[in-house]
Amino acid sequence: MQKVVTFGEIMLRLKPRENERIIQTDSFSGLYGGAEANVAVSLALLGDNAQFVSKVPAHAIGQAALGALSCYGVDTSEIHRGGPRLGIYFFEKGASIRNTSVVYDRAGSSFAVAPAEEYDWDQILQDAGYFYFSGITPAISSALQKALLAACQYCAKHDIKVICDLNYRGKMWSPKDAQIAMAKLMPYVDICLAHDEDFEATLGIKAFDNDMSHGIEQRETFIQGMKEISRKYPKCQTVASILRDIHSVEDSKWTALMVDHGEVFQAPVYQMHVWEGVASGDAFGAGLVHGLVHHFSKEKMLNYALAASVLKLTISGDFNLVSDAEIQAVMAKQGNMRVLR
Amino acid sequence: MQKVVTFGEIMLRLKPRENERIIQTDSFSGLYGGAEANVAVSLALLGDNAQFVSKVPAHAIGQAALGALSCYGVDTSEIHRGGPRLGIYFFEKGASIRNTSVVYDRAGSSFAVAPAEEYDWDQILQDAGYFYFSGITPAISSALQKALLAACQYCAKHDIKVICDLNYRGKMWSPKDAQIAMAKLMPYVDICLAHDEDFEATLGIKAFDNDMSHGIEQRETFIQGMKEISRKYPKCQTVASILRDIHSVEDSKWTALMVDHGEVFQAPVYQMHVWEGVASGDAFGAGLVHGLVHHFSKEKMLNYALAASVLKLTISGDFNLVSDAEIQAVMAKQGNMRVLR
Amino acid sequence: MQKVVTFGEIMLRLKPRENERIIQTDSFSGLYGGAEANVAVSLALLGDNAQFVSKVPAHAIGQAALGALSCYGVDTSEIHRGGPRLGIYFFEKGASIRNTSVVYDRAGSSFAVAPAEEYDWDQILQDAGYFYFSGITPAISSALQKALLAACQYCAKHDIKVICDLNYRGKMWSPKDAQIAMAKLMPYVDICLAHDEDFEATLGIKAFDNDMSHGIEQRETFIQGMKEISRKYPKCQTVASILRDIHSVEDSKWTALMVDHGEVFQAPVYQMHVWEGVASGDAFGAGLVHGLVHHFSKEKMLNYALAASVLKLTISGDFNLVSDAEIQAVMAKQGNMRVLR
Amino acid sequence: MQKVVTFGEIMLRLKPRENERIIQTDSFSGLYGGAEANVAVSLALLGDNAQFVSKVPAHAIGQAALGALSCYGVDTSEIHRGGPRLGIYFFEKGASIRNTSVVYDRAGSSFAVAPAEEYDWDQILQDAGYFYFSGITPAISSALQKALLAACQYCAKHDIKVICDLNYRGKMWSPKDAQIAMAKLMPYVDICLAHDEDFEATLGIKAFDNDMSHGIEQRETFIQGMKEISRKYPKCQTVASILRDIHSVEDSKWTALMVDHGEVFQAPVYQMHVWEGVASGDAFGAGLVHGLVHHFSKEKMLNYALAASVLKLTISGDFNLVSDAEIQAVMAKQGNMRVLR
Amino acid sequence: MQKVVTFGEIMLRLKPRENERIIQTDSFSGLYGGAEANVAVSLALLGDNAQFVSKVPAHAIGQAALGALSCYGVDTSEIHRGGPRLGIYFFEKGASIRNTSVVYDRAGSSFAVAPAEEYDWDQILQDAGYFYFSGITPAISSALQKALLAACQYCAKHDIKVICDLNYRGKMWSPKDAQIAMAKLMPYVDICLAHDEDFEATLGIKAFDNDMSHGIEQRETFIQGMKEISRKYPKCQTVASILRDIHSVEDSKWTALMVDHGEVFQAPVYQMHVWEGVASGDAFGAGLVHGLVHHFSKEKMLNYALAASVLKLTISGDFNLVSDAEIQAVMAKQGNMRVLR
Amino acid sequence: MQKVVTFGEIMLRLKPRENERIIQTDSFSGLYGGAEANVAVSLALLGDNAQFVSKVPAHAIGQAALGALSCYGVDTSEIHRGGPRLGIYFFEKGASIRNTSVVYDRAGSSFAVAPAEEYDWDQILQDAGYFYFSGITPAISSALQKALLAACQYCAKHDIKVICDLNYRGKMWSPKDAQIAMAKLMPYVDICLAHDEDFEATLGIKAFDNDMSHGIEQRETFIQGMKEISRKYPKCQTVASILRDIHSVEDSKWTALMVDHGEVFQAPVYQMHVWEGVASGDAFGAGLVHGLVHHFSKEKMLNYALAASVLKLTISGDFNLVSDAEIQAVMAKQGNMRVLR
Repeated sequence: MQKVVTFGEIMLRLKPRENERIIQTDSFSGLYGGAEANVAVSLALLGDNAQFVSKVPAHAIGQAALGALSCYGVDTSEIHRGGPRLGIYFFEKGASIRNTSVVYDRAGSSFAVAPAEEYDWDQILQDAGYFYFSGITPAISSALQKALLAACQYCAKHDIKVICDLNYRGKMWSPKDAQIAMAKLMPYVDICLAHDEDFEATLGIKAFDNDMSHGIEQRETFIQGMKEISRKYPKCQTVASILRDIHSVEDSKWTALMVDHGEVFQAPVYQMHVWEGVASGDAFGAGLVHGLVHHFSKEKMLNYALAASVLKLTISGDFNLVSDAEIQAVMAKQGNMRVLR
Repeated sequence: MQKVVTFGEIMLRLKPRENERIIQTDSFSGLYGGAEANVAVSLALLGDNAQFVSKVPAHAIGQAALGALSCYGVDTSEIHRGGPRLGIYFFEKGASIRNTSVVYDRAGSSFAVAPAEEYDWDQILQDAGYFYFSGITPAISSALQKALLAACQYCAKHDIKVICDLNYRGKMWSPKDAQIAMAKLMPYVDICLAHDEDFEATLGIKAFDNDMSHGIEQRETFIQGMKEISRKYPKCQTVASILRDIHSVEDSKWTALMVDHGEVFQAPVYQMHVWEGVASGDAFGAGLVHGLVHHFSKEKMLNYALAASVLKLTISGDFNLVSDAEIQAVMAKQGNMRVLR
Repeated sequence: MQKVVTFGEIMLRLKPRENERIIQTDSFSGLYGGAEANVAVSLALLGDNAQFVSKVPAHAIGQAALGALSCYGVDTSEIHRGGPRLGIYFFEKGASIRNTSVVYDRAGSSFAVAPAEEYDWDQILQDAGYFYFSGITPAISSALQKALLAACQYCAKHDIKVICDLNYRGKMWSPKDAQIAMAKLMPYVDICLAHDEDFEATLGIKAFDNDMSHGIEQRETFIQGMKEISRKYPKCQTVASILRDIHSVEDSKWTALMVDHGEVFQAPVYQMHVWEGVASGDAFGAGLVHGLVHHFSKEKMLNYALAASVLKLTISGDFNLVSDAEIQAVMAKQGNMRVLR
Repeated sequence: MQKVVTFGEIMLRLKPRENERIIQTDSFSGLYGGAEANVAVSLALLGDNAQFVSKVPAHAIGQAALGALSCYGVDTSEIHRGGPRLGIYFFEKGASIRNTSVVYDRAGSSFAVAPAEEYDWDQILQDAGYFYFSGITPAISSALQKALLAACQYCAKHDIKVICDLNYRGKMWSPKDAQIAMAKLMPYVDICLAHDEDFEATLGIKAFDNDMSHGIEQRETFIQGMKEISRKYPKCQTVASILRDIHSVEDSKWTALMVDHGEVFQAPVYQMHVWEGVASGDAFGAGLVHGLVHHFSKEKMLNYALAASVLKLTISGDFNLVSDAEIQAVMAKQGNMRVLR
Repeated sequence: MQKVVTFGEIMLRLKPRENERIIQTDSFSGLYGGAEANVAVSLALLGDNAQFVSKVPAHAIGQAALGALSCYGVDTSEIHRGGPRLGIYFFEKGASIRNTSVVYDRAGSSFAVAPAEEYDWDQILQDAGYFYFSGITPAISSALQKALLAACQYCAKHDIKVICDLNYRGKMWSPKDAQIAMAKLMPYVDICLAHDEDFEATLGIKAFDNDMSHGIEQRETFIQGMKEISRKYPKCQTVASILRDIHSVEDSKWTALMVDHGEVFQAPVYQMHVWEGVASGDAFGAGLVHGLVHHFSKEKMLNYALAASVLKLTISGDFNLVSDAEIQAVMAKQGNMRVLR
Repeated sequence: MQKVVTFGEIMLRLKPRENERIIQTDSFSGLYGGAEANVAVSLALLGDNAQFVSKVPAHAIGQAALGALSCYGVDTSEIHRGGPRLGIYFFEKGASIRNTSVVYDRAGSSFAVAPAEEYDWDQILQDAGYFYFSGITPAISSALQKALLAACQYCAKHDIKVICDLNYRGKMWSPKDAQIAMAKLMPYVDICLAHDEDFEATLGIKAFDNDMSHGIEQRETFIQGMKEISRKYPKCQTVASILRDIHSVEDSKWTALMVDHGEVFQAPVYQMHVWEGVASGDAFGAGLVHGLVHHFSKEKMLNYALAASVLKLTISGDFNLVSDAEIQAVMAKQGNMRVLR
């Protein structure tokens, strides 16, 4: 089974217990996560050969982050130890009309301040079949943009498939900076995930009006945007998107689209009661990659990815702690009680 | 007030805190429960004279199980002490489309390995008016089938009413084994509770198509199945069933039917937001028995049982920790805001 | 900025963890709150100059209550120390059809047994612009009725606006006693909040049929009742009310009305998923007062108050721990996904 | 086996988690206890027939208190339901040189405000062999002094042994009041427990200099004090005392004396590492009573009581949750590693 | 670096929170451990190549056990999945004179019921340098005795060093059964750990009088016993023992002896304040093996093992979560404040 | 009462629950603290007028830090809001021979990156009587060294007493850097606290041999060192030091010395059982300042400071949550059971 390499940051996530707010709590749950780390954990839990490449500090917090990955079977042999600190994010779950919010405390992390040369791609990628990163990684530092470019170039030479989740984060960089950076990387990308504001902020493509309460009805503009990505970056002939109607923190509808070599696929619509609305995009990406590795049909790949993604909404923490059997069970219930067609 | 004797297993229930999954947690809530024990606790909380008969090990875990029953007023004087262990079940609450799941670790328990002769029914049942068991008890061991037969025969001779909740558990025995065993016990049963798959798996009667998302609309086949039970086992002239439309872990509709000497009764429909979907059948059974003891009309008995049952969906743990006043309050609100007619 | 003085009781609130019932728990969260204290905290968090006047015992529990207020910026310099005890209330959150319930243990508190002379209004109110109390304070003792009358008379002489939330509590006094007491205070009130049963129980005015599942459709009788208040107490030319359709513990719709000098204003309707249905009336009152202090238009004042109020439904504890920015964000989303017009 | 009746108050005990102070915590463990209730629980756990007589409110907190007793096998059939509230005490465990401290919030409890006639001693004591109370009960109200006198008089007439733990509490009454009240009860007492300041405060007898760091070396004055009790109250021919050297919250030495018809017995000295220094006197009293019921020799009775008492120092909560086997194991290790002779 | 293979059972350990007893708790910490698993975790944390061989069930509890090992870097590729259940033990920490106690619930585990043929030693041990087991493994089943014999024979043929911790458990088998089983395995053992009662119960050699309060002064009889082992089993020229004076649950003195080819080594004496007195023998064994792998001098090996062992007394859970640097720091402080020479 | 101004950093302190290590925990207690903040809280709790000057970020974590100070009465009006982050430290409590350890994650905090000009000393100090800082503040940045110099110069001109706790932190700067920086500030210091390694690392004065197990016997060299400080910095005629014998994490002896204008004072020796060995130096400093403000005699001032300091060893968190009465009670017990003379 070919190795999937993911490259990004892992952080400590601190969340107040029992729905408390940060300003009132004296008790935090402390878990670890990060977009590409989450993808690696998902793949490892699905039985794939997943390696996460990153850097964490050489103290107890760094070791705990490593342990959190090893625990679920991720290969951590290329996670470097050193540098000043592990990034942190405070996660405050919302309720009803009060949005979930995040306080980032990630500046100056070991991963952020490491030079591009830290990563020896010849060695890391020598037996890889897939390389996965999200738009968060290049947003962290120009060194990481350089490191990513080197990795992508290696992949291009050695026929390693590159998957990129655009994952725009407005708190980390501006659309302008994102577009400059991603324009250099997109030519190497084989499969692209673009959700919500990603189209416009990262690639300058208009596909979504930013009203999260009515994403699903914008199906056509999404499809146009997805096709536009393939036009602009011809290597990228597979583009996938999650579409949502978010009614409240607990209540939303989810579906997904994929455009593959011009052909359009749509997953079913799920009506969800959300426990924790975080990292479902990573779960979706991992589902797609799992489908790739196992040569699923495009339709199955998309449905599998969406089922994985909505399952994540029921899980505590960044990691999508579900099994292949559980994802398949969700898929099997389409048209049944729990899924809206 | 005549004593109600219930006979079955009590187990330690371990549940991860705050919606975590078993594979990620290091903290379990530890409560005690089991179908017939739950019925005894309900009755004791309603002020009835309830005795639970069972066997638990003579160590601290066994003592804690006893304490959990005594705490709510159950007579534990006929719970034997000894044997190897207390059965355990791990309870992982689901969310939305992720099902609640249970890992059983109950094999080899003190109750399971005790011989039929352990229980002296002449003494236990001498001042009883009602004897309650569920299909779980005979599923545990052939010794328990033998013990149940002896108890039922004693009841028949001494005019003690026998109530049986069929309670089929596919992880414990096959339909074939269940049907053989129950065929020997059913002739002694006065009141039978049959839900969902119980009809077919335990008695070979077709009443429900196993689609939990559309139970309520199958009212007619349920009624036919219930009547068929009374035809097959003429002593059993009262049969009751819960019917549900389960949309997700949190969201479901509940109603109930009773066929008594051929007459059909239906309870109102409750739209429920579920906290913990466990042991609501036991709460229903206890409600029926409470109605029997207090000579409720059939209609009131059924409505009371269903109100108790849906209240259980709002309670943590196996025991239905509600009062008579709370059940009556739920019943009084039919046709009001909280209940759909 | 003119000081807002609120006068009432602060209590220790004990709530079982993770949705447990009181009879099964051995673990309580311990927070502090009380109607007028909650208003003071809201105002302090919104940046207003808020002082809470009360009395707490001179031991650790009293000090903790003070700390809970200081923590959020409330001026506690006129909270007296002494007397026997801090009032307590046990808070048991319901679920679905099981109501949230409260066990009061507040009799004999330091605040309840203090004499009217304890409070030197000349000093306390000398630089105040607003005085706020709820109907709970006069329900506690006749001394407090006397103290309130003295405070109101001072306000009348010194042009301090008096705001009163009628806040009827059936467990504390009868409608008859409430009506006698409030009839003495209402002539001094400038702005009155009347919700649900308050109209009839406190003022003998019929406005609501007490069916909490259908409050919103009773808009017209509410308006008549509000106008009746202004007719009866001509000083009181501003009356505001929350109207609700409560479907279950988790699920309700909220709107609000204000009648100001005969003109009627209505806020939008919010569809809410409720986390903790307590103290939303206090949050509403604080929102109104904040609008007064900052000279909001009547329409904005009402909308702001309701947005604050529904946000409270998403917060743990009695205090409405939200910022002005969060309230404004909720208001901005009217007509959008999260709010029903 | 003859019934032991104990009579007193049960309270809710609230203790901050993990060694926190009251002024910093937002989380309390909530257990139930009280001197005479603790004795009843100990006896029930030792297999004796123990009944606790008291009054608790008819709401959930009262029910939880009952459950806490039933859980361990205490007969609660004579605990009345009604009245305003359950007494509370806040328990803040100290450390090293910081003393453990208690904030009482027990005034106005259901037990405190009940009239003397509430208890029908003819019925309660009809099949009792022993009646146990502590000096806390008469300290609560004059009605309770009256009720105790009635109970003691019944005991005298019916040859029921009366055991009294003097248990002086300076926060509840003055030495003067204590002496007046106890002078009326002591003539009925068969067995008296007097520790530390009890001699002087309750009976006006000088036996201890109040320096808790050097109790054991005052053996002789203790013995004189104990003999003086028997001289003053000739019915009381058995007096027992715990003597301690308390070095810090965690570190102390414990022994005990008994004077029986003039004969002196001394238990071994235990060097203890204390987990929770509360209710060890009650554990001692229960040990004595257990010895009485089972006709232990005086020496064994004393040693048993002390072993039970020091075991309590290792237990969380007011109840001494230990078995007879555990007490015997501690006794057996005298002269061994864990006990200083 | 040569692989160390350890072979044994891993269990779920359930421990009541905050020093509570099992009969009073409703909250358990849930961690995983077992003698040989603990050794593997220690070695992995020290950077060694450690593999744990075992069998766990194929459900979530089994997966969690695997994760707990992977988390710290143990090779879990030869842990089989299947069978009925994971063994459990309930761990109740004592205090002062109340002993820590354990309730085993391990019968019928997946490991216990697996046949000897389950393990393919040719493959498992092909690149191993060391094989480690404790006396617990053969105590579980005769199949495991057979499996161990096969493993030991493979080791003898392939020059793999065999390390055995005698680890007698009286609750699992009798001295007689232990002696019969171990007599077959001891001829293959190169290094033997024998503590306390192990000498007599497992090998029939008298070395210790079973008074845990005075182990250290029995140094000479321990040495004789250790030499006797080498005489009886000439392959076993290295024997190591921990000697202790246990004064209370919290307070004890620790030292260790090693006899290597007749030469005696003694480690320093540590005065310990114990947090959790469990698994320190496993930590000791791991320290010895680490010394072997890295060719420490005998003296350093022993000192290192003891330092690791006493550090374990300060750690929560079965795993000795310490680093090489921390062990070295403890060793360096001999003769300093924290260590008694 | 003259205001005491303290100037330094406040951080979020994350500590694993129940003695767990960082690498195993998923649950942190989250409290706030920092040397000078701790001093301010102590003073506020003692009733003094204490102001803490600092900078925290403008998000929820910053607000929570402010709340933690306001809660205990500290004036936070000169704590600026803005900048990137709040410093964090992970606190892992040790046990016995395993040291307590700290992982700093404080680089780049809002306080660390603020320019010297941020603080307007003319305004801040205009009504101050005392200015307190520790050696941690200048270790953070050169801007803070500049800010401190400006503050000290203002104090010198306006007769505000300057108190400095040298508080050397090896993880923050080298002795060389510390000595250069402190040499510029010491000429303005009136009262200096120097403990342990502070003498040599911060001032280049030899007073202590760095063996924490034998501090108390080095009394004479401490006194010489203290006198040397006054010689070198003639304005500084009061120097105070804590001397300790640390036997283990739980077990240590504490005393203190003060040299005032050449006169030597010594506090009693306390034998301590330590709960949390952090921030006791800050508690000592606060005790001294409280003595200054209230014109205690030198002897009382020292004894008071030491009593406050050892009480801190019994408290959870950085803040010394004790009252004046509790400090006085500790002092009163000298020569008694709890204190060694």
